[in-house]
Amino acid sequence: MDRRTPRDFAARLDIALPIIQAPMAGFQDSALAIAAASAGALGSLPGASLAPPQLRTHVQAMRDAGARAVNVNFFCHAPPEPDAAREAAWREALRPFFEEYGVDPALIAGGPGRLPFGEEAAALVEELRPEVVSFHFGLPAPALLERVRRSGAQVWSSATTLEEARWLEARGVDAVIAQGVEAGGHRGVFLGAETSTQMGTFALLPQVAAAVRCPVIATGGIADAAGVAAALRLGASAVQVGTAFLRTPEALTSAIHRAALASPAAAVTALTNLFTGRPARGIVNRLMRELGPLSDAPPAFPLAVNALAPLRAAAEKAGSGDFSPLWSGQNASGARDAPAAEIVRLLGAGLD
Amino acid sequence: MDRRTPRDFAARLDIALPIIQAPMAGFQDSALAIAAASAGALGSLPGASLAPPQLRTHVQAMRDAGARAVNVNFFCHAPPEPDAAREAAWREALRPFFEEYGVDPALIAGGPGRLPFGEEAAALVEELRPEVVSFHFGLPAPALLERVRRSGAQVWSSATTLEEARWLEARGVDAVIAQGVEAGGHRGVFLGAETSTQMGTFALLPQVAAAVRCPVIATGGIADAAGVAAALRLGASAVQVGTAFLRTPEALTSAIHRAALASPAAAVTALTNLFTGRPARGIVNRLMRELGPLSDAPPAFPLAVNALAPLRAAAEKAGSGDFSPLWSGQNASGARDAPAAEIVRLLGAGLD
Repeated sequence: MDRRTPRDFAARLDIALPIIQAPMAGFQDSALAIAAASAGALGSLPGASLAPPQLRTHVQAMRDAGARAVNVNFFCHAPPEPDAAREAAWREALRPFFEEYGVDPALIAGGPGRLPFGEEAAALVEELRPEVVSFHFGLPAPALLERVRRSGAQVWSSATTLEEARWLEARGVDAVIAQGVEAGGHRGVFLGAETSTQMGTFALLPQVAAAVRCPVIATGGIADAAGVAAALRLGASAVQVGTAFLRTPEALTSAIHRAALASPAAAVTALTNLFTGRPARGIVNRLMRELGPLSDAPPAFPLAVNALAPLRAAAEKAGSGDFSPLWSGQNASGARDAPAAEIVRLLGAGLD
Repeated sequence: MDRRTPRDFAARLDIALPIIQAPMAGFQDSALAIAAASAGALGSLPGASLAPPQLRTHVQAMRDAGARAVNVNFFCHAPPEPDAAREAAWREALRPFFEEYGVDPALIAGGPGRLPFGEEAAALVEELRPEVVSFHFGLPAPALLERVRRSGAQVWSSATTLEEARWLEARGVDAVIAQGVEAGGHRGVFLGAETSTQMGTFALLPQVAAAVRCPVIATGGIADAAGVAAALRLGASAVQVGTAFLRTPEALTSAIHRAALASPAAAVTALTNLFTGRPARGIVNRLMRELGPLSDAPPAFPLAVNALAPLRAAAEKAGSGDFSPLWSGQNASGARDAPAAEIVRLLGAGLD
């Protein structure tokens, strides 16, 4: 059995199609994962936004719904040291917007934000035994990674460069997710912090497939059957799709975000670190235009979120997505107001 | 006849394969174009680096060698006003390097550098009657464009966004070249000057193909048969390939540049405006690392070239590509030390 063929990749997970519904922190729970799984894809849950008790509930919901496999995704960034000077500078950069929306900076909540994979998450993996544990921003410390492996889970992680792909394979991952620069949401970049050298799917995917022996999952720009077929032709064993699911009724995407995805604005996205402190791709909006999409102003990931939260809330209340992370890949043409199972069927037509 | 099928696209040009050898200003003349054409591709000549008398010679050489069609490419940027302050700032930024290499700034030549398509070029097109005239950086003024059309040439131009593709179609081009961000050399961007929103081939190509009715030529990241097949699957009628030809014996690529393309360094490229004043993709080298690849320092295209020329020459003489534009796309895996006809045959295997 060649585990790199799409058919065998899916067979190993006991799923019908080598299509992965991308985990999207903050934009989904098991409703989307179950709907995608019902059509034969691998459903995913975002461990970065679902705390352990919620994760337990949602994995159980997937099992109850008959999902053959579950992918739980975790971030594994190094938690930043709070930096009062950077935080103050960030609030100063946002001050004109606070004033415009009448936001009192004293009301900004503190807190660590998104937590990286740690002890509690490892214990949860041992308890819930998802078939796949995927990571973003590298891999956890060796002892934690070993616990995931011993739980029986396949371990996947994202690579945005050939160097990252080789680094992951050297650490024994079961699959590398080749994340082209087209992809929406956070770049998985973890070796260095360079955004200027990030590669498009068309260049990254075949070179990663040639550089590693494990299966390669393509993500970034895949929106329809033709995209699936093209990704397989470039060496992918499977595809991971996020943006195309953002307008489905099963996703938790806001109405403002859905409207942006359906509008001509979705044709213009950029990598920005303004919303969280790490580069992520979203539809260009006012905050990105006015501060520049990549800026020295925000504090380290994920601390940038805190000061923006009340501003985002105030703007959204007024019907505006000017300060919201409107995550989207560069190809939102597949994002339809249709059930997730229908999106999976459309994508699956590219597998023949 | 559906002019958008690859077969009919090639038939209209009386060439065997819907593969275009990309015009590469400064790196080729008719030797490469003839070799590519001999294997069934469309050979191209760079009107930006070959002055009219040279162009006449090289078009004739292609005809003598039996090429069925000729593509002559021209730049159509607006010539910049010289700006003494920017020029002085640029030289100041380069001063440490001048000192290191003993370059006397007084020896920097002036001159306009690359000329845009104008009267003389239009007269040459009328005389030489190339089957295709392709443009980079938009289109020439309407009267000039009309002369090209009346010569009988197909008119092509590059689009890096959906907006540019629609703009070109509205002006009646015969084909749009969808240039993904993976592509080496100059970005064709002409509406705005934004680099942060440039799209990967995987996202740009299918959306351009959906947005325009004319044939779409894919370029950026296509390095081998699988790339050709994937591009056709994403809606391309033809592919344009540059980087894969840079190490052929028929190209004029320097030994230093060839060595960089064959080295692991080729895995890391970035868009840079340092070498000419406009963003172009090249292998990251010392100048890009030390000044940052995108900088406010260089004067407007193409004036940045002048001050760099003696520095580049001195460094190359010492065996270094630290100050040379090492143009390359993000997928140099197809760039082999093999005859251009062999490269065309390898690419052509993706057409079945």
